[in-house]
Amino acid sequence: VKYGVTRDHVLGLEVVLADGTVLETGRRTIKGVAGLDLTSLFVGSEGTLGIVTRARLRLRPVPPPASTLVAFFGTLGAAGRAVVDLVRGGTDLSLLEILDRTTIEAVEGWRRMDLDTEAAALLLVQVDAPAPAGASVIQRAAATCEAAGATDTALTDDPVEGEALLEARRLAYPALERLGATLLDDVAVPRSRIPDLIDGIEAIAGRRGVTIGTFGHAGDGNLHPTVVVPHGDEEARVRGLAAFGDVVRTALDLGGTITGEHGVGALKRDWLEREVGTECLRIQRAVKATLDPAGLLNPGRSL
Amino acid sequence: VKYGVTRDHVLGLEVVLADGTVLETGRRTIKGVAGLDLTSLFVGSEGTLGIVTRARLRLRPVPPPASTLVAFFGTLGAAGRAVVDLVRGGTDLSLLEILDRTTIEAVEGWRRMDLDTEAAALLLVQVDAPAPAGASVIQRAAATCEAAGATDTALTDDPVEGEALLEARRLAYPALERLGATLLDDVAVPRSRIPDLIDGIEAIAGRRGVTIGTFGHAGDGNLHPTVVVPHGDEEARVRGLAAFGDVVRTALDLGGTITGEHGVGALKRDWLEREVGTECLRIQRAVKATLDPAGLLNPGRSL
Repeated sequence: VKYGVTRDHVLGLEVVLADGTVLETGRRTIKGVAGLDLTSLFVGSEGTLGIVTRARLRLRPVPPPASTLVAFFGTLGAAGRAVVDLVRGGTDLSLLEILDRTTIEAVEGWRRMDLDTEAAALLLVQVDAPAPAGASVIQRAAATCEAAGATDTALTDDPVEGEALLEARRLAYPALERLGATLLDDVAVPRSRIPDLIDGIEAIAGRRGVTIGTFGHAGDGNLHPTVVVPHGDEEARVRGLAAFGDVVRTALDLGGTITGEHGVGALKRDWLEREVGTECLRIQRAVKATLDPAGLLNPGRSL
Repeated sequence: VKYGVTRDHVLGLEVVLADGTVLETGRRTIKGVAGLDLTSLFVGSEGTLGIVTRARLRLRPVPPPASTLVAFFGTLGAAGRAVVDLVRGGTDLSLLEILDRTTIEAVEGWRRMDLDTEAAALLLVQVDAPAPAGASVIQRAAATCEAAGATDTALTDDPVEGEALLEARRLAYPALERLGATLLDDVAVPRSRIPDLIDGIEAIAGRRGVTIGTFGHAGDGNLHPTVVVPHGDEEARVRGLAAFGDVVRTALDLGGTITGEHGVGALKRDWLEREVGTECLRIQRAVKATLDPAGLLNPGRSL
């Protein structure tokens, strides 16, 4: 949440275009505004405009060891208030992740970690500022969570203990995978709408008769609702797909996006126009047609 | 230097295209990868692709008051070493600016500020981390400058005194403007090449018989060499233009860019292909032709 996404660190690309042209984009300087920003055009184009064969990235120094906080909340509303209050400070936090009750139960049911399975959600927070600033920021974060209604908090400046606390997040997806066939979503909403999104997802799970565990990058508003249905149950698979669509629609209705980081691909292709609008999709397709008039590159994906 | 450039904070745009289409680009979430990044394509396009009528920006909290350091150096090499050592730490510094000897003399000759006019360069450094972290970072910065060979340093955590120290930077361009007709350049180089750039500029000034004062954003490698010639002297104006071209060529030869932030416009249009290459310019023009086939938008500029 502090350092942005990979896109923010791409300075230049080598791209092979549909006609075989080898294109070099970008610059070797930190700042530069000479001509159109083709680098950003190619990043995230999902292979529809050219094939990236080299990338020049801005590197960052290895951050100092992080302090870690885990906070449990009895209601989604309280967890959502904590997220909003935590990010108001800007970029102090290096990590801010959420797990909902379904995900907590899946993790705890697999690997006993003494997680509070009565909680509606837990937040994991890290700060990688150098000491002594790091310790004071993580203590402020704990106080913020408590003021927002956290039922329990635990914090550590020991990197090994911090890693142990993060383990619940690492296990989130594999723990849900153990419960059945999964369909991993990737929506993002304005951070203030995270509780509405999770509320909406719980309603969808009930209505469609499927399990949905939600976890992800609360600090960016980017969540991964994961629909779980029994293996080999075709009727459940269809209900799962419908639930997946309901989640995407809910995110859009909350002012969000159909994909925060995974991309459009084939699965969300029909949703793209709904998000970006008819004119914007027309312009995107015109740019695509300019660079790849025969439609050779990654046909059927994204645009 | 810590917060990046405006481009980094543009979430979305409303753009009127050449055919009258009103296009909405971007998103309302922090993260989002749905479709092509048209926002970045329009930012920095200098009005050649459409007319921006609205921009949605990511806001940041007001930073805490800054601590400020000024450091004088007897040689450009020492100042350049200090810049490289200072930025190695990443984003700790909020400001890192340089003034060369010609600029220092122009400022001191106008408003007596007790600047060391024997110095080859001065660096201005700010840190806006909250106390007590800010004070320790600015003290480390002072030590870094001294280790790199600074002849004198002064630092303050008083915001009013800090503003007074920044005054030399604020006066840089108007002080040079007092000396004659100016041609303000805007090149950027990898930060390790700043001393080479300033050395090269001093050689150009001598060879072309013009004054060039260099100042700017050392933390980004983005400098503003300002060519000064007597008002109304046509022959000097031609020498000044030649010197301006020499500066641009020197920046390119050092792995830099013809424009760090001001743009290509009309003045640097002939340089664009030299920087980005024939193929890249061809693709940029193809994108332009797709969006503005009749060439209505800002003709004669940039592309």
